[in-house]
Amino acid sequence: MSETKTTVTSETKRGTNYSHYNGGTLEHWSQHKMVHPRVGKVRGKHFLKDHLDFTGCEISINSLPAGVAVPFSHQHKENEEVYIFIKGSGQMLVDHEVIDVCEGSIVRIAPQGLRTWRNTSSEPLVYVVVQVRENSLRQHTFEDGIPNTDPIIWPA
Amino acid sequence: MSETKTTVTSETKRGTNYSHYNGGTLEHWSQHKMVHPRVGKVRGKHFLKDHLDFTGCEISINSLPAGVAVPFSHQHKENEEVYIFIKGSGQMLVDHEVIDVCEGSIVRIAPQGLRTWRNTSSEPLVYVVVQVRENSLRQHTFEDGIPNTDPIIWPA
Repeated sequence: MSETKTTVTSETKRGTNYSHYNGGTLEHWSQHKMVHPRVGKVRGKHFLKDHLDFTGCEISINSLPAGVAVPFSHQHKENEEVYIFIKGSGQMLVDHEVIDVCEGSIVRIAPQGLRTWRNTSSEPLVYVVVQVRENSLRQHTFEDGIPNTDPIIWPA
Repeated sequence: MSETKTTVTSETKRGTNYSHYNGGTLEHWSQHKMVHPRVGKVRGKHFLKDHLDFTGCEISINSLPAGVAVPFSHQHKENEEVYIFIKGSGQMLVDHEVIDVCEGSIVRIAPQGLRTWRNTSSEPLVYVVVQVRENSLRQHTFEDGIPNTDPIIWPA
């Protein structure tokens, strides 16, 4: 069971083989609120697994204000993390190495990597964090795909 | 082995516990090129696993031009997919259900869901696709985290 409490801003729409949830515009991501079990109330971090019924990942959408640094560092037990930066710029610190990040930077961190990050810019740092179990993927890209050659019929 | 061929626009920087790669600005994502095993040359789709050494996921960054529809549909063998839309608007078709998507829409699709999508707007539809093995995650959110209380020392 997760200890995370999130403020739902959108309802999930569920179909037979999908879930759809809207996290709001990038500008809105700063408004999401949650209770972090150690840090307390946090703004600008929103976990999506419970909204979208993920079974192979956890994903959060994030917005860190201008000039703010995350006040702790952390490692993981068995999950690989991927940080996808889509707006703003900042730095990550992994073990003792600094990584400059900006729009389009993608950073993979192994579970044992000790990580923290900060926004060094004057605008929000907007990013997505993906959490997956290390070594869990067996096939990827097109290997796992099953193409379908039937004509596509979009409902009128 | 993947059949995917990608055009590398940035070098990967590797540290002990991380990999870092820059995919370029969101505007640049439309310029990535690859060879799709069935469709041939494709622009605006860029797989990142080989650049970032992912072991638990495949992630692609994508930009679909204004008014363009993906010309095929597909399912997956064992992987769950998550589509994260970050710019523009369009529609997904999953089995026979239409989902309207825009900035901030996140859609999870089970392997057996038959999916295709299109850009119904006059600007690029920019999105990230995450591929993970269904049911592979064992713990998530903070359950998998190991907080560290040592002071954070950013190198000067």
